Amino acid sequence: MTAPWPPAPADHPFGIHNLPYGILTTTEDPARRIGVAIGDHVLDVSPVAQATRSDHAVLLDAPNLNPLMAAGRSVWTTVRAEITAWLTDPDYRDIVRPRLIPRRNARLHLPFEVGDYVDFYSSEHHAGNVGSIFRPGGPPLPPNWKHLPIGYHGRSGTVVVSGTDIVRPSGQRLVPGESLPAYGPCLRLDIEAEVGFVVGTGTRFGDPVPLGAFRDHVFGVCLVNDWSARDIQAWETVPLGPFLAKSFATSVSPWVVPLDALAHAWVDPPARDVDPLPYLDDRKAEPGALDLEIEVALNHHTISRPPFRTMYWTAAQQLAHMTVNGASLRTGDLYASGTVSGPRADQRGCLLELTWNGRDMIELPDGSLRTFLEDGDEVAITASAPGPDGTRVGLGEVTGRVVPTRG
Amino acid sequence: MTAPWPPAPADHPFGIHNLPYGILTTTEDPARRIGVAIGDHVLDVSPVAQATRSDHAVLLDAPNLNPLMAAGRSVWTTVRAEITAWLTDPDYRDIVRPRLIPRRNARLHLPFEVGDYVDFYSSEHHAGNVGSIFRPGGPPLPPNWKHLPIGYHGRSGTVVVSGTDIVRPSGQRLVPGESLPAYGPCLRLDIEAEVGFVVGTGTRFGDPVPLGAFRDHVFGVCLVNDWSARDIQAWETVPLGPFLAKSFATSVSPWVVPLDALAHAWVDPPARDVDPLPYLDDRKAEPGALDLEIEVALNHHTISRPPFRTMYWTAAQQLAHMTVNGASLRTGDLYASGTVSGPRADQRGCLLELTWNGRDMIELPDGSLRTFLEDGDEVAITASAPGPDGTRVGLGEVTGRVVPTRG
Repeated sequence: MTAPWPPAPADHPFGIHNLPYGILTTTEDPARRIGVAIGDHVLDVSPVAQATRSDHAVLLDAPNLNPLMAAGRSVWTTVRAEITAWLTDPDYRDIVRPRLIPRRNARLHLPFEVGDYVDFYSSEHHAGNVGSIFRPGGPPLPPNWKHLPIGYHGRSGTVVVSGTDIVRPSGQRLVPGESLPAYGPCLRLDIEAEVGFVVGTGTRFGDPVPLGAFRDHVFGVCLVNDWSARDIQAWETVPLGPFLAKSFATSVSPWVVPLDALAHAWVDPPARDVDPLPYLDDRKAEPGALDLEIEVALNHHTISRPPFRTMYWTAAQQLAHMTVNGASLRTGDLYASGTVSGPRADQRGCLLELTWNGRDMIELPDGSLRTFLEDGDEVAITASAPGPDGTRVGLGEVTGRVVPTRG
Repeated sequence: MTAPWPPAPADHPFGIHNLPYGILTTTEDPARRIGVAIGDHVLDVSPVAQATRSDHAVLLDAPNLNPLMAAGRSVWTTVRAEITAWLTDPDYRDIVRPRLIPRRNARLHLPFEVGDYVDFYSSEHHAGNVGSIFRPGGPPLPPNWKHLPIGYHGRSGTVVVSGTDIVRPSGQRLVPGESLPAYGPCLRLDIEAEVGFVVGTGTRFGDPVPLGAFRDHVFGVCLVNDWSARDIQAWETVPLGPFLAKSFATSVSPWVVPLDALAHAWVDPPARDVDPLPYLDDRKAEPGALDLEIEVALNHHTISRPPFRTMYWTAAQQLAHMTVNGASLRTGDLYASGTVSGPRADQRGCLLELTWNGRDMIELPDGSLRTFLEDGDEVAITASAPGPDGTRVGLGEVTGRVVPTRG
């Protein structure tokens, strides 16, 4: 079976304007290696780089994206141009075609070795809904919310690739009305639909990253499902924040879309009603917000369409804030936007909001009802962004199925 | 200059019963390699392992401790017995002596590649003092405190070795009485004297670690200074916990003392006034608390002597709790006890408590006064534990000097 040429129609979400990076294995070759998605295929890039005597063949011969990500922005641009040429220039066709693997034959792995994982809380609609649910009658946002992008560190060792089964966590929870906590499997297992930013080049210990240096450090974008155990969270979270409610699993999409593929997706961030401090003031700085359209499906039924462009704090502001204290960055650091929720009820990025903490049921097409996730449930988050000439750039998907607690 | 033989007197804090592991370089040989402290020397173990045809020569030929730590408990025991033989059996003397480097000639590095870093909050005296300072009149402990060891994830990428200068962090703070936050260098820079536990062998995603498996997973112990920016913390911490107030730096001692060296240091934990849930119930389980005596010095003047044995939650309980939700462990994961404070005023492990949030001054021998740290201040935390036959096992020290903020 010969792969098509050109390998993808222009309007494919994994068309020539996208070229996201991932890590694949195949039944025939179980070694982890870099792949680039193109249409319904994956290009096995290392052998092509060797055959074409690419200057970057060494970077592309790796079991994860970290060496490429560490190489820096000018290399990212050069390598992307090279791969574009391989997939469009007929001179390369005979080298490239045998290296196009049907996507269904490729097994995808965690694309990068995760350094630190930070999770933000930057949707005003999400934070406001959460505030209204848990503090009815009080102000929906905490007093610091519009002055800084609130965030916290999560567990990088449990960041897993899309498709990994999620074991229902057990833990402590305080049943309302009880005076003592009980132990058992989480009863309110939730998702959070988020967008992740992957750091390429690190920084020196003690050096902040200004807003304008965002593109020098961030390599690309992925999708994140920040699984959350709401009952565990409610009991543990005061005073030091979420811990076990989040640390059991965070799923990421297998494809990292390079920032260069999102050049047509930048839009103005929403108006801010509080003047940001200078290090966060992006009114004269690039880049702004990203116009990603997200879709959340539960058991193959769409339950929400969160619009990423409505996020109050941008990825550049999050990076500037995360490093303003001199905290250094490493290649592979991942930071996520926080749950993406839009202003409308059908744009909310987690079940906590969609069901208003279990008050409202979601009815699935088979007639079954959900407040939170049941064992066997499968969640898929997908997204796309505007590309050139009316095309869409796909971010792929992050999926996960809930399996029963162990032990 | 020939090294002494035996290389250390029996009552040396780095005597034959200790044998902590670290990573060294020398001017003559800048390659990072494993060293074992013995008396005033460091044994360069890899060449000895090769010369003696040790079965573990490969594990010991590494730029960090991770391969050895990953090898598991039975290997840790065997390697320790081997090194003990090298340093005591006269047959090895001629091989070993040329590999003993005076400790002052060895530069020490971060001993292990850090996976995830978790910080607990397990001293009842510390948590109670903090509660009394920030919530006077209210209950000093949050309602969950005696039911679970509260913790949160910190930034593993800014864990640095003892001796690394600490750049004063900048950030946002709300000056009391003001309505808007200001940006600037931290004005209330603090320390936290803690004990760190280093994970050797990891676990499968989804599997909890029961209390009794502590020794199968934890390789050893180090000292931790969890630098803290109290003004940044006060403003950012609600609702998701400390973030930039902690993420700029965490210092660790260069020597990891193996658990086997602490066999004489186990004592009963303090009485608990609340029955722990079964997964945390250590009344019939080993091990208990560790009897480490800690000393905190500011500019070479001792300001506190926190007793580690008074911690309410033990390291085994912390490990069981951290994984009860199925969060997997990786080799190199570091978790710290939380600030160690005893019942007495001169046993408090941070300046926040020692100065009661700046109300009381600390007078240093040169007549200068401190509430929080000034640029140029140097902090050293040291500790030791009971060894066999009345000896002491030293944990070495973790030091750091504050340097002015950048940018």
